[in-house]
Amino acid sequence: MEVQQVLHMNGGVGDTSYANNSLVQRNIISKGMPMLEDAILDLYCTSFPEKLSIADLGCSSGPNTLFVISHIIDTIKKKCHQLNIPLPEFQMFLNDLPGNDFNNLFSYLPDFYEKLKEEKHVSLEQCFVAGVAGSFHGRLFPNKSLHFIHSANSLHWLSQVPQGLQNEMGISLNKGKIYIGKTSPPSLFKAYLAQFQRDFYLFLKSRSEEVIGGGRMVLTLVTGRSSDPSIKECFFHWELLAQTLNDMVSQDKVDSFNLPFYAPSIQELEAIVNREGSFSLDRHEVIEIVNFTSGQNVAKFIRAATESMLADQFGAAIMDDLFRRYEHNVDVYLSNEKAIIINLVLSMTRKE
Amino acid sequence: MEVQQVLHMNGGVGDTSYANNSLVQRNIISKGMPMLEDAILDLYCTSFPEKLSIADLGCSSGPNTLFVISHIIDTIKKKCHQLNIPLPEFQMFLNDLPGNDFNNLFSYLPDFYEKLKEEKHVSLEQCFVAGVAGSFHGRLFPNKSLHFIHSANSLHWLSQVPQGLQNEMGISLNKGKIYIGKTSPPSLFKAYLAQFQRDFYLFLKSRSEEVIGGGRMVLTLVTGRSSDPSIKECFFHWELLAQTLNDMVSQDKVDSFNLPFYAPSIQELEAIVNREGSFSLDRHEVIEIVNFTSGQNVAKFIRAATESMLADQFGAAIMDDLFRRYEHNVDVYLSNEKAIIINLVLSMTRKE
Repeated sequence: MEVQQVLHMNGGVGDTSYANNSLVQRNIISKGMPMLEDAILDLYCTSFPEKLSIADLGCSSGPNTLFVISHIIDTIKKKCHQLNIPLPEFQMFLNDLPGNDFNNLFSYLPDFYEKLKEEKHVSLEQCFVAGVAGSFHGRLFPNKSLHFIHSANSLHWLSQVPQGLQNEMGISLNKGKIYIGKTSPPSLFKAYLAQFQRDFYLFLKSRSEEVIGGGRMVLTLVTGRSSDPSIKECFFHWELLAQTLNDMVSQDKVDSFNLPFYAPSIQELEAIVNREGSFSLDRHEVIEIVNFTSGQNVAKFIRAATESMLADQFGAAIMDDLFRRYEHNVDVYLSNEKAIIINLVLSMTRKE
Repeated sequence: MEVQQVLHMNGGVGDTSYANNSLVQRNIISKGMPMLEDAILDLYCTSFPEKLSIADLGCSSGPNTLFVISHIIDTIKKKCHQLNIPLPEFQMFLNDLPGNDFNNLFSYLPDFYEKLKEEKHVSLEQCFVAGVAGSFHGRLFPNKSLHFIHSANSLHWLSQVPQGLQNEMGISLNKGKIYIGKTSPPSLFKAYLAQFQRDFYLFLKSRSEEVIGGGRMVLTLVTGRSSDPSIKECFFHWELLAQTLNDMVSQDKVDSFNLPFYAPSIQELEAIVNREGSFSLDRHEVIEIVNFTSGQNVAKFIRAATESMLADQFGAAIMDDLFRRYEHNVDVYLSNEKAIIINLVLSMTRKE
């Protein structure tokens, strides 16, 4: 396994419009693009299939999804042009949970096709997009039906909050917190890791049925370790969210709420990949993105990801106030500390 | 080509709840089921593929779509049980225009999978559903990627209102009407037929690329002829809608509005199938459904299908009043006349 150097980047997202939320995500996706390009070209140039079947798992409903598809088409198109061979057909599957806003996602399609035709001279007869509503912790596609899988910003979300976050007395192991913190007991860490192991194992097992031998997978997810000693806290955004909640609601409510989120280390991921056994982990890369320039940015980004679960637990009525206070707390934090997101990009091959 | 007898049926939809709208549709779909069963079994028993790729075109967003899928699975399952062979995988594509409510459609999936498992013992690993947003007058799927296509209640909708519905002076050829009526001039009829010919030709051409040789297609659409001489008017619902509009809005507005709808005869359909040349028309069947028992039923059914275009032309503000008056007019009509919908079911095979 080749280990890439750690990169430090500043995304430079300065303004505060709604589009920022997806710009932060797009920045993460963009930084993983070189590995995605390498993997898709490797795959394509091994057998030059007439049709490439590709799935984007946990695609969400914004324009980023079509940005990935578009980039994949560009990459293959350039290669076909170099080699003077016809473009293959692309069958693109966009997956997310049934609650995802597929209507919104599909509303971008007419424009997307128009641009494919006008700017890239790729016709409607060469790119076919379908939406698939279901959990990637189970099967989504027929046997050996996919060449390539991409998933960004999704696999760190667990299928459920881990079991066993209370002791025998029913008392929370994570008092005043909503995620693993520096003061959390080892049993909490263990419960979270166990849930991630189950989820990622099922993810790999399901994909192993769906991807053809030699097929590729490029996955991007949040990891929990920084090599930069000046970074005090990788999950400052969860710490500050817990603090803000503690200022607003009863301790019971915070104690009984835990995020279904886990940021694994590369060693933890590698162990699961090896145990499942169907994929080889060819490369990984750590990407540190320092691009939170304001509390408003962070608040929007975190609100987009968590509002529905927070509203379930704490009531929709306090959401505006919560994120107003949170924004302020983040601003105070950012005036003293560097804030980053650390992502891992993994490139894997389905064994023959 | 085998021509089936004309059937007369009474759907018996008596109550007036919202579900009626889809019950009328489901009734139409149900009556076409024997031909659908024959076609899918013929196809399956010719080559016993390990995976059946099936598309439902113009699926809309209600439970009827999953009813069709479910029936197809039942049919194949029964055959596999008889022959003591394993069930194939099903890849089901549900298609409609990008404006269709796919979110609603996908919201039925968790229940659908639960029932597949509990009632039919078909696991999640055997049936994969995807949504495809696009027009069936163009390409939707990769080359030779489908075994079977079903489309019900959709192909009578045109891709656009026909051109040439005015004379050289810009005066409407269809004064006071919204569809072809008994008093319409031949040029109007010709313009509608020409648009249908273009649309259905493009439909067949696109499907001919997508369906494998020997693949099947079962299509249900409204036709305009009844063999029952006691039926005065097959499109009483459009006639009455035009009358109601004429009572409410300026004549100009009615004159310039025409429905993008055409109900072809079997001869017209056959001519297009032969000209396009990729499919053989194996069988057709005429299904007459007499199931409009109240003005309320008809008003709901027609409102569901036309409200968005009517609101565009005449304003959303008058819709409630329009359909209240329409309901009354239909009740008066039904007290004197028999009201029917006549459907054609076509069964075709992709030539090798």
